[in-house]
Amino acid sequence: MSKLYTDLGKLIAHLDIPNGSRISFHHHLRNGDYVLNAVMAELAKQGKRDLTINASAFFDCHEPLIELIEKGVVSGLECNYMSAKLGAAIGLGILEKPVIFRTHGGRPKAILDAVTPIDFAFIAAPTADYQGNLSGKYGPSACGSLGYAFPDARAAKTVIALSDNLIDEALADYSIPGCEVDYVVSLEQIGNPQGIVSGTTQVTRDPIGLLMAQLAVKTIQASGLLKDGFSFQTGAGGASLASAKYLHELMLEQGIKGSFGLGGITSYLVKMLEDGCFETLYDVQCFDLAAVESIRNNPQHREVSAMHYAAPSKQGALVDHLDLVILGATEIDRNFNVNVHTNSQGQIMGGSGGHSDTAAGAKLAMIIAPLIRARMPLILPEIQCVSTPGESIDCVVTQYGIAVNPARSELKARLEDAGLPLKSISELEQIATKISGRPQIQKASGRVIAEILYRDGSRLSEIRQKA
Amino acid sequence: MSKLYTDLGKLIAHLDIPNGSRISFHHHLRNGDYVLNAVMAELAKQGKRDLTINASAFFDCHEPLIELIEKGVVSGLECNYMSAKLGAAIGLGILEKPVIFRTHGGRPKAILDAVTPIDFAFIAAPTADYQGNLSGKYGPSACGSLGYAFPDARAAKTVIALSDNLIDEALADYSIPGCEVDYVVSLEQIGNPQGIVSGTTQVTRDPIGLLMAQLAVKTIQASGLLKDGFSFQTGAGGASLASAKYLHELMLEQGIKGSFGLGGITSYLVKMLEDGCFETLYDVQCFDLAAVESIRNNPQHREVSAMHYAAPSKQGALVDHLDLVILGATEIDRNFNVNVHTNSQGQIMGGSGGHSDTAAGAKLAMIIAPLIRARMPLILPEIQCVSTPGESIDCVVTQYGIAVNPARSELKARLEDAGLPLKSISELEQIATKISGRPQIQKASGRVIAEILYRDGSRLSEIRQKA
Repeated sequence: MSKLYTDLGKLIAHLDIPNGSRISFHHHLRNGDYVLNAVMAELAKQGKRDLTINASAFFDCHEPLIELIEKGVVSGLECNYMSAKLGAAIGLGILEKPVIFRTHGGRPKAILDAVTPIDFAFIAAPTADYQGNLSGKYGPSACGSLGYAFPDARAAKTVIALSDNLIDEALADYSIPGCEVDYVVSLEQIGNPQGIVSGTTQVTRDPIGLLMAQLAVKTIQASGLLKDGFSFQTGAGGASLASAKYLHELMLEQGIKGSFGLGGITSYLVKMLEDGCFETLYDVQCFDLAAVESIRNNPQHREVSAMHYAAPSKQGALVDHLDLVILGATEIDRNFNVNVHTNSQGQIMGGSGGHSDTAAGAKLAMIIAPLIRARMPLILPEIQCVSTPGESIDCVVTQYGIAVNPARSELKARLEDAGLPLKSISELEQIATKISGRPQIQKASGRVIAEILYRDGSRLSEIRQKA
Repeated sequence: MSKLYTDLGKLIAHLDIPNGSRISFHHHLRNGDYVLNAVMAELAKQGKRDLTINASAFFDCHEPLIELIEKGVVSGLECNYMSAKLGAAIGLGILEKPVIFRTHGGRPKAILDAVTPIDFAFIAAPTADYQGNLSGKYGPSACGSLGYAFPDARAAKTVIALSDNLIDEALADYSIPGCEVDYVVSLEQIGNPQGIVSGTTQVTRDPIGLLMAQLAVKTIQASGLLKDGFSFQTGAGGASLASAKYLHELMLEQGIKGSFGLGGITSYLVKMLEDGCFETLYDVQCFDLAAVESIRNNPQHREVSAMHYAAPSKQGALVDHLDLVILGATEIDRNFNVNVHTNSQGQIMGGSGGHSDTAAGAKLAMIIAPLIRARMPLILPEIQCVSTPGESIDCVVTQYGIAVNPARSELKARLEDAGLPLKSISELEQIATKISGRPQIQKASGRVIAEILYRDGSRLSEIRQKA
């Protein structure tokens, strides 16, 4: 009994994938991923058509998909995030069916509930042993956590691992057990290490970003949440990382012993773990080399599945135990609804990822974003789409002041007591308009090119083509 | 949002468990388990009736079940193993419905396939954090692996953890994620440490056992399997452990680097890991304190789920990669069919556990057993029931010689070449009969009191009441 193949073409031929199949990928190799393109090229070569791809995210490296969509090889896309190159092509209307956007927590729920069943899951595996036990922590293409691939491995009808590091040993530290893996195929290289993880993630040097980060940390302090047992997630954006850095200094200064850091993990959270600011890191994806090294070596740095990270359930996920999440935004409306799917022009260039999952779960969901970006105001009367409902957002920190969701009167009182520069969301909107003028952009009104599903699977919003 | 309860009675009342519910338990606390009795007593107190219990195993400590069966609180039992006290009561006919026996691999398959759905799973958790992340490795009632509880946690409609070590930290080294746990209830003590694991497991000192162990190891040597990459499982019986000990010495002597040790883990396998005889231990259950300590501290000693251990699937389980398994037997017939469910009198006092799973998967499935035990011959024309089909058994090692399954001509030739004392199964039967006489025991012929399901769920055999 061997599930090992050395030739992807032969394996694809053996699988006999029907036209119309639903296939999946995960995005831990990020913009260095070779696996999706290699599999799709082979499927195209073997004449497959009408495939639906469900990937946790699409990056610019997946640009070859555009041609495959145009040729009819691919007719459906589902994801939690889509970067600008593919997004621009979708905006041109190349795909007939709307892209289905989910969240990092909604996707595993939908897969496990068979709302979006997966016929063939292709898993990029930095290491695979001879039994098909898989790990992301070891090998030349190591990416650390494989958290987003867990639902695919568990629920897909057929699971194919692709690896450039097949080992003859019995892997002890596997992430996905061989009993969930049907086939393992060796590839020369599954990814470009340059693109998989950044060498280092960088705190912003922009003075506006640093100013916002200082305001963010003062807000956290004033919120009353920063005490022993504190739990925290932040994105890898420059201002968010700067906030993490200030928070780190503050926690050390005040001797605060936090509980856990969560989410996509960077060197900043690793340093906080090592300095005792957290007991544990729960890691669904590593963003840099320091995170990969830490998850490999530090038993307190734990890989978690996408389900455990963020899936909505009565049992609760890790996001439901978050005290604080720091998030970004492209656009915000007066009701605190946030768009992170498109740019101000309505072109797809992002997605929820864990945005709405963490915002829903965290006690304090804080947006940090510059009030003006490339001459476009952050706050607008109407936004291109809703990625995260405003009711999940507690406050918005900008360089011109902090707007607290009016539903959070206790938070507002605390920030007032601390003397922080509070503004209403309308005041912030007015300041922005005064500086940049009222933008002349209309909300796109063409056909629906993408549907945005909330984490529970309900329809939250849509993205339309520019007329 | 808190899933924590401090009072079992209040939680049971809150759960509002309907009569006729199907509830489950796991057996890692073995004969020291307090959890099953505590839960069942509370259910009885609250007037529940007609419950079906699916436990991975029942031990003598679960004797209070007899009264609950007689009172109608419990009307169905399903398990992979049942020790003698409850077995004797079943033999007296106290339960109307037959006991359903599965295997350690068949149970998770049946649970996950909803062949035997679980309404309420009760999980004895030596440590639980405030989110419901569970571990067996830490705390005063530490038992090590929680492998058999994984299917229950994943598939039960409601999952209740019971723990005597609730911690306020964010557990990094959890076995079962909090997102699979609905409730956590604190108990003063979940088990008696004396009964949970043996202080030490002991190699036999019986000269017949040692003789058989020597024959077993010579057989392994002659089989050609003992080379780099060798993988191995053995039970915790005295002669099996003696075989492991001799094997250990031989592997060190010959510098053989094995691949993995599997199954229920004892200090003997731990020593083999530490001495480099294996790369990895895959542990579904710890049998002694050394194993608990090792799984806690040695990253090469890995907890595995019951699915990964042994569930039959097209992807294969760890048992499918075994070179050798050493197993025991109560009775064997001329076709190598093995009974490990009853004693020679037909009284239930065991069960498959992983017997038929490992026998089906291993390249060499070896029975080691004395030809006469308490004046009863091992080999009989007719056995009380079939636990493992003879086609899975490769050879039987006794102190009077080795019988090879006639279907294994290559193995037979190798053992012959090595000059080992081969006998046919009939010759061994005749030797036994000559020594102990032909036993006057009839196969029980009353009503069916237990059904033995093979690992794939098909009906393999049955146990009848003594007429």
